[in-house]
Amino acid sequence: MNLRSSSDSGVAGLVEKLVAGDRRALAKSITLVESLRHDDQETAQRLTNAALPHAGRAIRVGLSGAPGVGKSTFIEALGTWLITAGRKVAVLAVDPSSQRSGGSILGDKTRMPELAQSPNAFIRPSPSGTTLGGVARRTRESIVLVEAAGFDVVIVETVGVGQSETAVADMVDVFTLLISPSGGDELQGMKRGIMELADIALVTKADGDLLHAANRTAAEYAAALHFMRPKFAGWHPEVALVSSPTRLGIPEYWAHVERFCATLQASGQWDEHRRLQRLAWFGTELREGLVAQLRERESVAGEIRELEKMVAGGQITPASAAGRILSKAFPKP
Amino acid sequence: MNLRSSSDSGVAGLVEKLVAGDRRALAKSITLVESLRHDDQETAQRLTNAALPHAGRAIRVGLSGAPGVGKSTFIEALGTWLITAGRKVAVLAVDPSSQRSGGSILGDKTRMPELAQSPNAFIRPSPSGTTLGGVARRTRESIVLVEAAGFDVVIVETVGVGQSETAVADMVDVFTLLISPSGGDELQGMKRGIMELADIALVTKADGDLLHAANRTAAEYAAALHFMRPKFAGWHPEVALVSSPTRLGIPEYWAHVERFCATLQASGQWDEHRRLQRLAWFGTELREGLVAQLRERESVAGEIRELEKMVAGGQITPASAAGRILSKAFPKP
Repeated sequence: MNLRSSSDSGVAGLVEKLVAGDRRALAKSITLVESLRHDDQETAQRLTNAALPHAGRAIRVGLSGAPGVGKSTFIEALGTWLITAGRKVAVLAVDPSSQRSGGSILGDKTRMPELAQSPNAFIRPSPSGTTLGGVARRTRESIVLVEAAGFDVVIVETVGVGQSETAVADMVDVFTLLISPSGGDELQGMKRGIMELADIALVTKADGDLLHAANRTAAEYAAALHFMRPKFAGWHPEVALVSSPTRLGIPEYWAHVERFCATLQASGQWDEHRRLQRLAWFGTELREGLVAQLRERESVAGEIRELEKMVAGGQITPASAAGRILSKAFPKP
Repeated sequence: MNLRSSSDSGVAGLVEKLVAGDRRALAKSITLVESLRHDDQETAQRLTNAALPHAGRAIRVGLSGAPGVGKSTFIEALGTWLITAGRKVAVLAVDPSSQRSGGSILGDKTRMPELAQSPNAFIRPSPSGTTLGGVARRTRESIVLVEAAGFDVVIVETVGVGQSETAVADMVDVFTLLISPSGGDELQGMKRGIMELADIALVTKADGDLLHAANRTAAEYAAALHFMRPKFAGWHPEVALVSSPTRLGIPEYWAHVERFCATLQASGQWDEHRRLQRLAWFGTELREGLVAQLRERESVAGEIRELEKMVAGGQITPASAAGRILSKAFPKP
């Protein structure tokens, strides 16, 4: 991307417009952050660091649920309600399988028509990417940018492919899991560990014919939660019901969210949680960069493949295989 | 450790004795593997690799539970029963907080007096170590050695400090969780994720006054399991009762274990599980070795600390901080 702002004054100018609420500047910034080009990535880093002091004041909400549970409908209902309550809402997405040309089903503005039209909303589809790590990194940087642009609620949605829920939980303050009213089977089939991620669980489509089933599912889920030690002291994960088309349960859901925030802020866990997320992300980036370094070194690339095969086949201990590669990659002088 | 066997012929001789069932050779080998000295570690690696072809044919059972649940009593009961059934039983332990001089409470022979006396049993306390990774590595290598020495059931126990259950689950075939009959509170307080690790859960002390409570706890646990997607296709984690002093439930427990093994072997998951464990361990060793490399480089050691502080404080993005360190540690020519 040819950007006059690749110079420091260019970056500063772009950040200035961003903070002033210029939507084109925001879109331009996020496009830069999502670019796969190496020179763009360097500029993007400078841009994100320059925006960082202006960020941090939003509530970051993670959202996941099986396809068909009603995520887009929920985001439309929640987002429009929040805007009438005076908030500015950004919607981002993490979907590692997304192809830019085809479009991800997440962050699809046609499914959130009212929200998409509001000047106080900003919806962005998932960045493309072949690895979850790459997509997650770009999304985290986009969070910084939308916050610097003044959005005070940032929703990050994911559809539950691979480890994407964990990646989203690691970048938000409060994680909400949407569950369909059919409950039972879905709860049993739920990926290991996903239930434990939720700070608030919401059973959708709790109206009409499905209201009875929704209540039963909520009770089952609450029973399962009984056995899980909470993520945060003082907060017991809650299950609520919502009917997005009627807006039933939306204000109550947000009251849950605000109570969660107040609880964590009062005990210092809010800041601590964000601090730990930053440090964990730092460690991940470091380790992935180190492994990439290793794979770039021709001298060891072939050896890694060979030894990995031997490890898989039980012909050499994993520890000694790793030791051999490290000695070769970093010979003692 | 001054070992004439540090030469290749010495190592080969030691392995020969090990495989022949020489207990002194086994003890010597494990002591070598547990040694923190660098030259011993090189010899230990050669020794473990030489023993590897003779290993792999045991059933590896992981065992955990809160202090006081009756682990030692259970191991004594199970171990002695297995020996009368013709097995040879090794008992290892993972306890990262153990101090060699003080002795870990795990692998304490005085609590397993009958087993400790049997020539067909081998009990070893946890290796010392300050990091879980170091202790886990030595225990994995000890598993290879006891298997090469002919032990066909290897029990690895842990007391549940930090991530030690996960470390043990990652090195065994079947993970058993012991639960006390008081149930309720304990299940609620259980560390996140531990319940999901169990392939078989056992409620202990299921006799006399506590039998009623034990049954109730078993039912509660089974209800919780209902919501968790199983680790392996075709195996639904089971809850059983055991009363170690009366040996009630011991044969039934082992029948569960054998059914588990048969199920996984029939579906190919047994070998696949072990293969994935080896590869995961390889990745862990590689990454830890790489990070160690980084911390050894004076040029970046100070920088890492400085940037880590800035990341924690939200003054720089984690991705760009990691990028800076990597560029400095691995400058492009």
